[in-house]
Amino acid sequence: MTIELNQNYAKLPDSYLFSTINKKIASFQKEYPKADIIRLGIGDVVLPLVPGVIEALHEAVDEQAVRETFRGYGPEGGYDFLRQAIAEVEFQTNGINIQLDEVFISDGSKSDVANIQELFGQKISVAIGDPVYPVYIDSNVLSGRLGDFEAVTGKWSEAIYLVGNETNRFVPELPAKKADLIYLCYPNNPTGMTLTKDQLQLWVDYANDQGNVIIFDAAYEAYIQEDGIPHSIYECSGAQTCAIEMRSFSKKAGFTGLRLGYTVIPKALQINGQSLNKMWLRRQSTKFNGAPYIVQKAGAATLQEPAKSQIADNIQYYMENARIIREGLEASGITVFGGVNAPYLWMKVPNGLSSWEFFDQLLTRAQVVGTPGVGFGPSGEGYFRLTAFNIHEQTLAAVERIQSFLAVGLG
Amino acid sequence: MTIELNQNYAKLPDSYLFSTINKKIASFQKEYPKADIIRLGIGDVVLPLVPGVIEALHEAVDEQAVRETFRGYGPEGGYDFLRQAIAEVEFQTNGINIQLDEVFISDGSKSDVANIQELFGQKISVAIGDPVYPVYIDSNVLSGRLGDFEAVTGKWSEAIYLVGNETNRFVPELPAKKADLIYLCYPNNPTGMTLTKDQLQLWVDYANDQGNVIIFDAAYEAYIQEDGIPHSIYECSGAQTCAIEMRSFSKKAGFTGLRLGYTVIPKALQINGQSLNKMWLRRQSTKFNGAPYIVQKAGAATLQEPAKSQIADNIQYYMENARIIREGLEASGITVFGGVNAPYLWMKVPNGLSSWEFFDQLLTRAQVVGTPGVGFGPSGEGYFRLTAFNIHEQTLAAVERIQSFLAVGLG
Repeated sequence: MTIELNQNYAKLPDSYLFSTINKKIASFQKEYPKADIIRLGIGDVVLPLVPGVIEALHEAVDEQAVRETFRGYGPEGGYDFLRQAIAEVEFQTNGINIQLDEVFISDGSKSDVANIQELFGQKISVAIGDPVYPVYIDSNVLSGRLGDFEAVTGKWSEAIYLVGNETNRFVPELPAKKADLIYLCYPNNPTGMTLTKDQLQLWVDYANDQGNVIIFDAAYEAYIQEDGIPHSIYECSGAQTCAIEMRSFSKKAGFTGLRLGYTVIPKALQINGQSLNKMWLRRQSTKFNGAPYIVQKAGAATLQEPAKSQIADNIQYYMENARIIREGLEASGITVFGGVNAPYLWMKVPNGLSSWEFFDQLLTRAQVVGTPGVGFGPSGEGYFRLTAFNIHEQTLAAVERIQSFLAVGLG
Repeated sequence: MTIELNQNYAKLPDSYLFSTINKKIASFQKEYPKADIIRLGIGDVVLPLVPGVIEALHEAVDEQAVRETFRGYGPEGGYDFLRQAIAEVEFQTNGINIQLDEVFISDGSKSDVANIQELFGQKISVAIGDPVYPVYIDSNVLSGRLGDFEAVTGKWSEAIYLVGNETNRFVPELPAKKADLIYLCYPNNPTGMTLTKDQLQLWVDYANDQGNVIIFDAAYEAYIQEDGIPHSIYECSGAQTCAIEMRSFSKKAGFTGLRLGYTVIPKALQINGQSLNKMWLRRQSTKFNGAPYIVQKAGAATLQEPAKSQIADNIQYYMENARIIREGLEASGITVFGGVNAPYLWMKVPNGLSSWEFFDQLLTRAQVVGTPGVGFGPSGEGYFRLTAFNIHEQTLAAVERIQSFLAVGLG
């Protein structure tokens, strides 16, 4: 009688989206070693860390070289200097009352987004966008909450899908059935679309009314260009009693390789008298030992000059790419969503091709890599995600190749 | 009808061991602001990072400043340069056949030790040392496997305790009842004791025979001074089919603030045809985004010169502290375990005092901080942990204070 394994692992389809993409690229490269592939696929930044961050890192490393300034274990929730700076710069200066001890520093938003479900009961219902960033789903599948995968529909039997489509411009309606835990991500990955403060307020009111909790993934808020788009869910009235917000330094400051993020859990968020803020502190104290001191120092540097302006310039650089892609595709008659307040562009695949068919054709005929929409859920079928994370020259070249490829006609 | 929470959080006693200690220190310091407290409590290093590591960090930071060498998202399991170096230097050169893809890099051993239980079923039985590093217990409590806490006994109703005591010299006997998952830590935290290869082989044979899995926490292996003490469980025959090993850079190379560890899961470790190596890769790919590139470069530097020798010198420095404490306490007639192949010393509290009573007296009368043994489990009652992680001068001063305090007599 051997030990019982977590059988939910066997339920997850074999390959993670980006592994499959990488395998397809590797296979093509093997066949055509000289092919010059341009990647607008995985949402990874390409610009190096800004000088202000590099300087902060060197300084922090030097502190670690001397006994008097060496830092070992840090507080599991993060150093006060960073928690305080975030509370002030990201929230209080925008009129949002978030305090130091409501901000929990982590090694990245992915970890937090995946771990947050641990605070909840085994049998809660979970509402998730479709299309969606796969981690919300996978982490709940591994915890056994989403039932079984139905290959025909591409859906999990127990998940509540919040369907985004052309009609609702990727802002789903409130769920028809009871949804205890609701994942929202705006600006959205993968669609690049946003919602207005009024639209978000509807969700907050609904959650407060029903006793639900919203996980608001704001990883891309720094890319918002237009007024009237909420940067934080706490801009909405009542959000502090129903919402957890996650933020990341990855896309904002190019920290994808440095690993830093944070989760905001207001003390007002209580369920039957239990504080989720306290539960998360306990979770993090038990299972995590804090983000590296030198990385937290780098994070704090991003919130002040000179790094702050340098980072803002990088975001404008990427948003110029987004404009190039959007306008280039539209000039070829493609319907494009996103790319205005987000680094993601969500294009409608022409000629009724499936999103993987389009992926294969774009790779083999134009040597451009994007992400098939269906990889983000069944409602992503027929769409394709491109990202603004490349240098201008490559982005321009990619758009020209896509235009030529579309002009010749799809296979 | 509000969302259901994970009720296991409410089961965990309110304060984590080290928080309680810190509160007691803070309260004493508030009353006596001029008190000069020496800390031999929390197992955190005090020597700064060695020059070879500092140099590697600066170099890696500079790579992150330039587009051509900038690294964003890394592989979730770690960079090959580090996985390969670990496989070679830590295992293959010692005649142990561990390959690159059996080594998973993480942000520290605490995370891995806490997360590994996710791979197993909800209803498995769990055997845990007593005394023990609390994370093995707490992570299984939060997953609902250990039942309820019984305040009178200090035990969890469903846990199988592997009791260490003076008689067995803190090497417990094989469990009397079925134990699916077995946590072993040698050199041990908190007792500082080790087992021989023959003793460890008994556990490996038992696990293979019964179909159990052993989690072997080898965080302190670098402190082993004597021959015949296994550095890795894979020195035992058959361990690759039943054991997972965790290692850390924290205590070995002073990375407590830099955050780096790794978990070894041999491909031969299969349960009913399911590979735990594959499951862990999936777990990490889904819920983790890798350790920082610059920290992984620092980790690789520790495995070669000049850092390797610099680190070995630091370990000898701490082991000299261990000798000072051990001999000093023994000179005062105290029975002391550990401190020979580990940075921890486990002293028997004299005069029948409880370990918290001894903590309070040592703090208030000698201004020395240690860790009450009972904080590591009921069998720790009557014991007290001291660590070798301080500078010589402070360690010597602490031992003198303890000796004077013992000479005056306990309260």
